[in-house]
Amino acid sequence: MPIAETPVRLPIPSLPCGYRMGGVHAGLKRNPTREDVSLVVSDVPAVAAGVYTTNLVFAAPVAHDRSLTPGRGIRGVVVNSGNANACTGARGLDDARAMAAAAATAVGAAGDAMLVLSTGIIGEFLPMEKVTAGITAAAGRLGTDDDAAITAARGMMTTDTRPKLAGRAVRVGAGSVTIFGMAKGAAMIGPRLATMLGVVLTDATLEPDDAQRILREACDQTFNCVSVDGHTSTNDTVLLLANGAAGGKSLAGADLDAFGAALVETCEVLAREIADDGEGATHVLRVEVTGCRTREEARQIARTVADSPLVKTAIHGADPNWGRIVSAAGYAGVPFDPTRLVLRLNGTLLFRDGAPVAFDADAVSASLGASREALIELDLASGPASVRFHSSDLTAEYVRLNADYHT
Amino acid sequence: MPIAETPVRLPIPSLPCGYRMGGVHAGLKRNPTREDVSLVVSDVPAVAAGVYTTNLVFAAPVAHDRSLTPGRGIRGVVVNSGNANACTGARGLDDARAMAAAAATAVGAAGDAMLVLSTGIIGEFLPMEKVTAGITAAAGRLGTDDDAAITAARGMMTTDTRPKLAGRAVRVGAGSVTIFGMAKGAAMIGPRLATMLGVVLTDATLEPDDAQRILREACDQTFNCVSVDGHTSTNDTVLLLANGAAGGKSLAGADLDAFGAALVETCEVLAREIADDGEGATHVLRVEVTGCRTREEARQIARTVADSPLVKTAIHGADPNWGRIVSAAGYAGVPFDPTRLVLRLNGTLLFRDGAPVAFDADAVSASLGASREALIELDLASGPASVRFHSSDLTAEYVRLNADYHT
Repeated sequence: MPIAETPVRLPIPSLPCGYRMGGVHAGLKRNPTREDVSLVVSDVPAVAAGVYTTNLVFAAPVAHDRSLTPGRGIRGVVVNSGNANACTGARGLDDARAMAAAAATAVGAAGDAMLVLSTGIIGEFLPMEKVTAGITAAAGRLGTDDDAAITAARGMMTTDTRPKLAGRAVRVGAGSVTIFGMAKGAAMIGPRLATMLGVVLTDATLEPDDAQRILREACDQTFNCVSVDGHTSTNDTVLLLANGAAGGKSLAGADLDAFGAALVETCEVLAREIADDGEGATHVLRVEVTGCRTREEARQIARTVADSPLVKTAIHGADPNWGRIVSAAGYAGVPFDPTRLVLRLNGTLLFRDGAPVAFDADAVSASLGASREALIELDLASGPASVRFHSSDLTAEYVRLNADYHT
Repeated sequence: MPIAETPVRLPIPSLPCGYRMGGVHAGLKRNPTREDVSLVVSDVPAVAAGVYTTNLVFAAPVAHDRSLTPGRGIRGVVVNSGNANACTGARGLDDARAMAAAAATAVGAAGDAMLVLSTGIIGEFLPMEKVTAGITAAAGRLGTDDDAAITAARGMMTTDTRPKLAGRAVRVGAGSVTIFGMAKGAAMIGPRLATMLGVVLTDATLEPDDAQRILREACDQTFNCVSVDGHTSTNDTVLLLANGAAGGKSLAGADLDAFGAALVETCEVLAREIADDGEGATHVLRVEVTGCRTREEARQIARTVADSPLVKTAIHGADPNWGRIVSAAGYAGVPFDPTRLVLRLNGTLLFRDGAPVAFDADAVSASLGASREALIELDLASGPASVRFHSSDLTAEYVRLNADYHT
């Protein structure tokens, strides 16, 4: 997978106040041009929130971060790629703590002030000498410019073809605060990897409980509505740091709502990027399910459609194969009346009243072939709830990446 | 997909007493060498049971058969392939009933004595002239020999490469009865198809409630433990006909138990054949999950592992990628203690005590490469329940079959 050589720019004029970051190549990845250890550092102690994988088999860094979030006094995040530190038992947990301690020492923070993210091969122990050398090197190259942010984001990549960045400025009270997020995709390299990671930074002031609540809500609407292969990783983590460097009191009321909305928008961009950069993908599937009784039911239907290999291969083949979509909705485990179901594909009506609708299959196929995004709209006409879900198509390249590259 | 030219033989010396069958090409499939309408006829009214898709979007033949099973007075089954008669509304139900009526007329049965199975394209109306002409032709060619059974089984095939047949003789009381089953796989041709169908015939005497119960139990252990792509079809149906032609009273007690066990064995052979003939498959995955609190929990873990694209591509690549298997078990939604989990792949221990185990990766990879079946054994060490689940691997050929062949 070549990394895109197109210039990458920050999505905002500058990073949130009071953060420095950077990434280096420490030798966990074979390719010396690829960063594999990153540091994100807040100049002052920050409030931190975290949302983690629901997998029972979770990695050591997840255990470490869970014990510290939500909370105060966090100075930053140390990230490595190339090794997930998952399924590594007690030694793995010791290694995660040692990473945090090394990072704290390198940036002059307290011993328990650093969060840890790892992504890469499952079931191998971290090469701690390389990791600690990388942490020291990264600490010496922290910056606040585009290059610093981009190398930090590249340091969390595995088979991603490009760093994923998003951000917003948010008006609060008389001033404004900044949100900046970076993420890596649900992808594999070794190929023992399968992880999504995200770090969102802001210079707003937030209370820990508020930070945790709005991060969970944002993840629920964005990162929890994205799938490449439906395989929940051992390491999935999204962190939010709020260091208050923009000044002002803790956000509340309408300001907190505005901030929460901007956080959703930021995470939405990153989540869509993850699906777009799914391994071997030629299409992003955007599944919009409306008219459900609850949001959870809408998501369950959207996820079932988005994960169906038959739907994913049909979209890859630019085939308006609506029977696969309707039948996937039917086995999602959500009760609904099939005769009220309405399906549109790229805007064209394909199914209504429980029976086929005449449509121009060639035109819909041409539309699917011409656009990177395929829009699947399902209306159940049974309630007020809706969801937007992103996925990628299933291609022979996905199989090649995951079958032919040996561990 | 070429149809296997190797000779196919019945798995039993002869069909159960009192059944005739046959298949013809009626023009629903383009290839004139492929049968697409089949008839199975009992000389006398039979007890019939049925197990059907759980998909809310179910096809017209499913609605027809559900209304007649479990019950008495069934004279047979009419089958077509090439068109699923699904998502076809009221006209589809009329067509399914017309198929049943035409078949009843052709074999001299009462109007409501025939069950119907369809598999093929979703969302197109049946070409009823071709279907009824095929029914008449099939009725004129019914037989009791190998050729009759094989053409009948071929008449339910879509992208299957071979008919799937199984059978047993069962000692009951002083005599014996015979079970014969045929099935088609979870596969597509149009490519709008995705169906498993099964017909099991016996000359034993069964009460309708007993027939329904043992068929449901057998399906629960076999056809409900097989997956190719995890997509539950609109048409999935397994029928059991018991015509009592072997003589004797209704089976009960130990005889009924022996019969039920033989029914499970018959369905198990057919279910494994479906996974083995999965589209593009190069391996059958046999997932054995043991040590669970309940059978349903064991199945949920087995299904999650067997459906994971990462596990399926790893097996295709002969890669002993145990992290994918352990992490799939972890997101199955079943609570368990990962430190008690034990994983073996083709007999080799790969994971125990929450940490990696040293093993010869080259030897396990060679073993995976050399065998058609990949054996994944997961022991949760938490209870007495277990399950056996069959799946197929995920290959570029699967993607090609389902993306590149246009509707």
